[in-house]
Amino acid sequence: MTRFVDVRNMVRWAAARGPERILSEMVGYVEADFGRWEEFDKTPRVASHTPYGVIELMPASDSETYGFKYVNGHPSNPAHGFQTVTAFGVLADVSNGYPTFMSEMTLLTAFRTAATSAMVARKLARPDAKRVALIGTGSQSEFQALAFRSVLGIAKLSVWDTDPAAVEKFVRNMAPLGFDIAVAPSAAEAVRGADIVTTCTADKAKAVILSADMVEPGMHINAMGGDCPGKTELDPAILDRGDVFVEFDPQTRVEGEIQQMPADFPVTEFWQVLNGQAAGRTSADQVTIFDSVGFAIEDFSALRYVRDAVATTDFFDEIDLVANPDDPKDLFGLIGALVPTG
Amino acid sequence: MTRFVDVRNMVRWAAARGPERILSEMVGYVEADFGRWEEFDKTPRVASHTPYGVIELMPASDSETYGFKYVNGHPSNPAHGFQTVTAFGVLADVSNGYPTFMSEMTLLTAFRTAATSAMVARKLARPDAKRVALIGTGSQSEFQALAFRSVLGIAKLSVWDTDPAAVEKFVRNMAPLGFDIAVAPSAAEAVRGADIVTTCTADKAKAVILSADMVEPGMHINAMGGDCPGKTELDPAILDRGDVFVEFDPQTRVEGEIQQMPADFPVTEFWQVLNGQAAGRTSADQVTIFDSVGFAIEDFSALRYVRDAVATTDFFDEIDLVANPDDPKDLFGLIGALVPTG
Repeated sequence: MTRFVDVRNMVRWAAARGPERILSEMVGYVEADFGRWEEFDKTPRVASHTPYGVIELMPASDSETYGFKYVNGHPSNPAHGFQTVTAFGVLADVSNGYPTFMSEMTLLTAFRTAATSAMVARKLARPDAKRVALIGTGSQSEFQALAFRSVLGIAKLSVWDTDPAAVEKFVRNMAPLGFDIAVAPSAAEAVRGADIVTTCTADKAKAVILSADMVEPGMHINAMGGDCPGKTELDPAILDRGDVFVEFDPQTRVEGEIQQMPADFPVTEFWQVLNGQAAGRTSADQVTIFDSVGFAIEDFSALRYVRDAVATTDFFDEIDLVANPDDPKDLFGLIGALVPTG
Repeated sequence: MTRFVDVRNMVRWAAARGPERILSEMVGYVEADFGRWEEFDKTPRVASHTPYGVIELMPASDSETYGFKYVNGHPSNPAHGFQTVTAFGVLADVSNGYPTFMSEMTLLTAFRTAATSAMVARKLARPDAKRVALIGTGSQSEFQALAFRSVLGIAKLSVWDTDPAAVEKFVRNMAPLGFDIAVAPSAAEAVRGADIVTTCTADKAKAVILSADMVEPGMHINAMGGDCPGKTELDPAILDRGDVFVEFDPQTRVEGEIQQMPADFPVTEFWQVLNGQAAGRTSADQVTIFDSVGFAIEDFSALRYVRDAVATTDFFDEIDLVANPDDPKDLFGLIGALVPTG
């Protein structure tokens, strides 16, 4: 039987364990996997693009465990009452290919994206960072805020979104949890004086959410919403203002903010910073930019973490996903026993 | 909610509907999809190879529906009590990216592989074909036999396998269903005088299951077991003796029997034969070879068929795979409502 965490169990488990504890524990798993980057079988995700959006499969594996995520991105979904991003994922045993664990990943992707942002910011933002600007207060925003507080201790936020109802929702969710939130009248006002800027919007277009004149010395920019061809958030001039860090170069060249730049535009894969093989932030005035598109290893880590964390709880079901005849060569026997003979 | 056909429901449904009815109905779906080949978004499958075997993701989509299959191939699995091939698959709505249907596909892959073999043989084998030789009597063999009877009316079989227990199992399963089965003492004996030869073995190696001297004029060879790099079944000389038909050229060049041939070795994609755009069998003496590796559109068709066929039955469950907050931008609200405020 395959263990399965459905939406109901994910919600119950997340509430019981606490989102901030989950985020800090998950950063441990993501960081451990980024730290052994070279052990992974890596491939850019396989994307199917349509005028409506994109559906992607994101596989990654080490020598013991294979994992993949199914994920969609449909920017116009919220206007029709649907989530922009939904996802589910599976882990399997490399030695026999059997799936062992399946989970909803709509919520889990929100957690893993925020955990990755916080992991990177802990390395690249100024150690004295005190305020995060959140541009975009959609589905991902609360998870970002909780990750920055849980992992970096930052509880001061300035927020902005084109949709006032989304801002109101964010404040309603986060103010009771003790955050100090300033609602800004514009993106520029939200960004002014911030130490970390997260851009997290969902237009499938070349947008300029952040322009070069808004960037101040020493800022860390966490650019998450540019994540497929034709979808960017940053004024390309910003990319020349700082040092750009990415997850997996071959994927980010196609999907990230750097799709706007020449093919030889210099970037650093973050795992090398983590392992001390490349420089991260080298001065307090330096602008650092995390051009985040989401990589399969992060999903692998998130699935590993949930699998381990729920193992000792009752927040999972078992599903009958793999046919398992007594004689492995007698697959037909499963049916044959029930078929009338003639 | 996502409809889910687990192993138990698949077994119950297959027995209730009848395997031969399923195979003939499924051929209709596969043929319909091959007939609109150019409408599909096609990509070679994404494979993760290890010394143990392979794990693959196989996506395909048209303008309305996206589908993918997870499938492994581990030749040494039966020695450890596991299936060589296990699989599951998903259909999703292209317009919003939401998964709508999930099914076990270990059994379903056996059905779809046999349905594809029969669809191709109906076009390429001699119309007067009376006997099928089955080389390899593992998990796939019964489904092949049932498909040839259901679709081509052939009930006369000669069979051979290196494993006598597998042959015995085949006879035990199929003889009561009215097949006329000759157990041959060798592959050569099984093949002699046969009109259609199916090779279906699982060694992950360059094997020669069928040698050129066994091939007779007019034979149709249904070569299914060569399906990943380094895994072939035919003496390459056979490929020069006849005309070779494939599913999807870019995938078969890497995975099929023709991996043994030069890059410009001529092959015909079967969908073109189906649509009258290319010649199939042109004479009674011609040797036709279907170098089958399994293509994502076949899984897409099989999933579509099962989704439609079970819709009016109770052979499915509903699973809670996609988080669906009332406000699509308030994903956190699903958890937040349960988190204590501080």
